[in-house]
Amino acid sequence: MAGNPQRRTALVDAGVEVLAREGARGLTFRAVDAEAGVPVGTASNYFTSRDDLLRQIDARLHSRLAPDPEVIAELLDRPKDRALVAAFMHDLLARATRDHTGYLALLEMRLEATRRPELHASYTKSVRGDLEEAIEFHRAAGLPGGDETVTVLYLAVLGLLVEHLTLPGVLDGVLPGVSVPEALVDRIVTVIVPEGRVPPSG
Amino acid sequence: MAGNPQRRTALVDAGVEVLAREGARGLTFRAVDAEAGVPVGTASNYFTSRDDLLRQIDARLHSRLAPDPEVIAELLDRPKDRALVAAFMHDLLARATRDHTGYLALLEMRLEATRRPELHASYTKSVRGDLEEAIEFHRAAGLPGGDETVTVLYLAVLGLLVEHLTLPGVLDGVLPGVSVPEALVDRIVTVIVPEGRVPPSG
Repeated sequence: MAGNPQRRTALVDAGVEVLAREGARGLTFRAVDAEAGVPVGTASNYFTSRDDLLRQIDARLHSRLAPDPEVIAELLDRPKDRALVAAFMHDLLARATRDHTGYLALLEMRLEATRRPELHASYTKSVRGDLEEAIEFHRAAGLPGGDETVTVLYLAVLGLLVEHLTLPGVLDGVLPGVSVPEALVDRIVTVIVPEGRVPPSG
Repeated sequence: MAGNPQRRTALVDAGVEVLAREGARGLTFRAVDAEAGVPVGTASNYFTSRDDLLRQIDARLHSRLAPDPEVIAELLDRPKDRALVAAFMHDLLARATRDHTGYLALLEMRLEATRRPELHASYTKSVRGDLEEAIEFHRAAGLPGGDETVTVLYLAVLGLLVEHLTLPGVLDGVLPGVSVPEALVDRIVTVIVPEGRVPPSG
């Protein structure tokens, strides 16, 4: 396996572009080489298989879409109320919107995972890890609502991201005065998260 | 355009299979012909273009995934409380789980819509129509919660369906004792829908 880390990242990012633009079926080593502008055969020196490439795309998107630790630290200085939960969700929405291509590639990965058992196992583990981390973070930060709150919030925000990043017009103005997804985030948090802290529901 | 309605439906259903199994990029007239077991060239007699085929797949899935009017009528005899909202959501989950292939094809359509402006317009209209219908149904039936409740519930259930139908292991047991998506539907409804009827929030 070739080891130039910058080239590896460039190839993985090229894979993300191909996934989002062409769909999973378009993701071949040859398409990745073309997208990255490198000689044919380069990708096959960096990835042992297509599943290996998909796993590395997953890891890369994890880091591309990760929160900025400084932003998180600043937010954690605020009172631990519902408004702070909304602020975290705004940050998540902003990251996914900024890296629209990356998020669409994640959705392609989900669909590809229904067809490839190896990817299904590794991707389930990775998404489950994110959800458990979110639950643990919420708990440790002393934010209002228990594990049930976080799980339902996770699902509603997943639904919002899927809708907003694929068919944004569906949600536009469906509630009077709510024409931007940020306003919908506020409504979601108001409906799901209790105002003050409640004991974790386990 | 050829007009045999049964053959048209068989071709559209073959398109759904191809979409779910191969992804949007695999959806060609030739693949549809092969899946339906008809001579090459048949699909091109039934659809004016690939966008036309995608529109007809959308319409067909709408009817495949539609609720059974008798089930709805029976449910509407019950008291208009939160448990009834949960019963409607259970019915929705059961339909999507039963027609797993159809639901995966809908997710493929979302991603394909990000690449094809014509599909994007028609599919946005169709999904928006479903959401408006759900809001109107909730209102007319006198179910608890206003439009905001229905919208947030719609997003949480969309998130649940996406997760459950692509990576079911992510949610399995994430809340203690909740190992089936049906139990998660109950938690979602409990968190989002008020117990009794409240005035519509507009």
